[in-house]
Amino acid sequence: MKIISINAGSSSLKFSLFNMENEELLISGTFERIGVGGSFVTFKLNGEKIKKEIELNNHKEAVEVLLKELVELKVIKSLDEIDAVGHRLVHGGDVYSKSVIIDDDVLKTVDELSILAPLHNPANLTGVRSFKEVLPNIPMVGVFDTAFHQTMDKSAYLYGVPYEWYEKYGVRKYGFHGTSHNYITKTISEYLKRDDLKIICCHLGNGSSITAIKDGKCIDTSMGFTPNAGLIMGTRCGDIDASLIPYVMEKTGKSLDEVMNDLNKNSGLLGISEVSSDNRDIEDGIKEGNEKCILAQNMLVRKIVGYISMYNTYLGGADVICFTGGIGENGIDVRSAVMNDLKVLGVKPSEERNNVRGKLQLITEDDSKIACYVVPTNEELMIALDTYNLVK
Amino acid sequence: MKIISINAGSSSLKFSLFNMENEELLISGTFERIGVGGSFVTFKLNGEKIKKEIELNNHKEAVEVLLKELVELKVIKSLDEIDAVGHRLVHGGDVYSKSVIIDDDVLKTVDELSILAPLHNPANLTGVRSFKEVLPNIPMVGVFDTAFHQTMDKSAYLYGVPYEWYEKYGVRKYGFHGTSHNYITKTISEYLKRDDLKIICCHLGNGSSITAIKDGKCIDTSMGFTPNAGLIMGTRCGDIDASLIPYVMEKTGKSLDEVMNDLNKNSGLLGISEVSSDNRDIEDGIKEGNEKCILAQNMLVRKIVGYISMYNTYLGGADVICFTGGIGENGIDVRSAVMNDLKVLGVKPSEERNNVRGKLQLITEDDSKIACYVVPTNEELMIALDTYNLVK
Repeated sequence: MKIISINAGSSSLKFSLFNMENEELLISGTFERIGVGGSFVTFKLNGEKIKKEIELNNHKEAVEVLLKELVELKVIKSLDEIDAVGHRLVHGGDVYSKSVIIDDDVLKTVDELSILAPLHNPANLTGVRSFKEVLPNIPMVGVFDTAFHQTMDKSAYLYGVPYEWYEKYGVRKYGFHGTSHNYITKTISEYLKRDDLKIICCHLGNGSSITAIKDGKCIDTSMGFTPNAGLIMGTRCGDIDASLIPYVMEKTGKSLDEVMNDLNKNSGLLGISEVSSDNRDIEDGIKEGNEKCILAQNMLVRKIVGYISMYNTYLGGADVICFTGGIGENGIDVRSAVMNDLKVLGVKPSEERNNVRGKLQLITEDDSKIACYVVPTNEELMIALDTYNLVK
Repeated sequence: MKIISINAGSSSLKFSLFNMENEELLISGTFERIGVGGSFVTFKLNGEKIKKEIELNNHKEAVEVLLKELVELKVIKSLDEIDAVGHRLVHGGDVYSKSVIIDDDVLKTVDELSILAPLHNPANLTGVRSFKEVLPNIPMVGVFDTAFHQTMDKSAYLYGVPYEWYEKYGVRKYGFHGTSHNYITKTISEYLKRDDLKIICCHLGNGSSITAIKDGKCIDTSMGFTPNAGLIMGTRCGDIDASLIPYVMEKTGKSLDEVMNDLNKNSGLLGISEVSSDNRDIEDGIKEGNEKCILAQNMLVRKIVGYISMYNTYLGGADVICFTGGIGENGIDVRSAVMNDLKVLGVKPSEERNNVRGKLQLITEDDSKIACYVVPTNEELMIALDTYNLVK
């Protein structure tokens, strides 16, 4: 069985084709600048990168090119080999707590949920509709970023705001990165052969979130109503005092939209360091003694440590802490600083084991009260797995 | 030595007169509705309440009445007995890390800091100026709500927002309730005869904040740029995802000012319970099985537990947790729930000892890893003590 995993943006389309018998990635790639001029596609195949410039007016044309190329590049012999397509759908509101086969009702509901994710859901749906037109007889599955977090208790997902904002308008914590947190939960549970683990999963990348998981279920997560809550991220502010918004508007003369844009695009590591949103650049800055880079990383570490400590208590004592995502898998210094700050909880970091990038590995001593692991994430595979399980 | 402690609001003036030899409270009271019609004063003297209706056009007239009444009520023989006046000043920005004798420079600086506390600093200064006019030769001392928190590290007080918002406009965490946190730190340190305690101080009332203190110095606090951050409070929302603000504006048609007003006045325990901002009413609701009251208290407890856990790690393991303020001193159920959730950190609650209101008492078992105490706060006395130490 072969499954395509899709992540469609407003002018982009990322894809991965998996052979589900052995979970092998056959080919992956990205179409960019769809419908905005200068469009191109990049394929990753057998360790090689192939870039092609092709004028694409819309997502449907991209899907047609993709399917044609899969045959021409001899990844598949014919389109009959494709058994299903799994789509990343950002926002499932409180309607979807699991992945679903996409029928007309689902399309309608996800469309309605666009009020909660106006930039993402419509783009995701464009991807679904394009595939449905080109491959009308192949099942499509929707995998939601929010679904994994639907097990949270009301006392965890509500804000201390007027209750009717929740009832009438759906104002609550939804959480995101659920596909990654789900994949990590599954991976570490299988690796340790336990399904009763209390896990703190730190997905640290350009966007970052930490989730507390008990018996496979999310009990709390750091992102909120939107992905701009919780940790300091590449360009997003994370937790702030909301009352600074009107103050900054008054002082700068900016509109609310402009300030919200600053909080999303010009904040986080970039806003503090004034150097870069990329932790690798921050680490280079730290080596050169750049004080704002040092400050930015200290702030990030402090927030990570704070959320882990909170969730450790909510879990009644975590068994494992997993680090994943770009920074989680590769940020040796960030992990080291976090684990050192967690010694009070019985974490015993191993500097030697922690000297690792991008592979599943224990990074604490054997007698650490909480075991810390690097666990590479694979959201594309998780989408394909959920799709496989629904259509097999 | 006798010292008056003053807390001036825009139309109110609270006072307490202390004999500093034995820290005895001689008289206290409040002038209300100054300058808005229907003004009156309430004195508390020898366990009795005396209410008098007096037309007061401004704070200076209130001060004149106060001093006259102190003599007439025979609390003092003459005004010569008053050695100094201590004033609560809400916002000292990053200028004042300690209480100060108020001279013209201080008046000017506190006035300039009104941009950070537009409702409070001008009212506080009206109180100072009124006393200066009536008692021109008596020293005045300013005691700031923010001063105690000025020892925080930059990585604790900065937000992940554009750095220039801090440099140009002073956007940072300031923290409030400093006078109370300072008083509790002093009290528990003296009680336990240690000045190296690692303390988590929970001031829980209509406004609530939690502060982490190491060697007498604040290292973090839950309130932020304004007092509407951190815990869920009586009517304030505490930590939220700031991105819900434009969404709620769009959905409700409210202005930014209206939504910010909702977040300050119609949120917190009141917003969730839809019953009351007062925890005593919430507890009555819980007894009647009101689900929203149960939810409101669960949310409050969860946030308290989260902050304590975070600060326990930042402190490298707390020695003591102190509960103070209206809920902290009297909320037996809230304290019990919090301590039970903290068992994972080695807290061993004693239900018997916890059955106490408003007096300094240990409420955990003797072998609790972190000792929890009820410690009644006394901000008025703290203001008088700081004043005494500066003028003696």
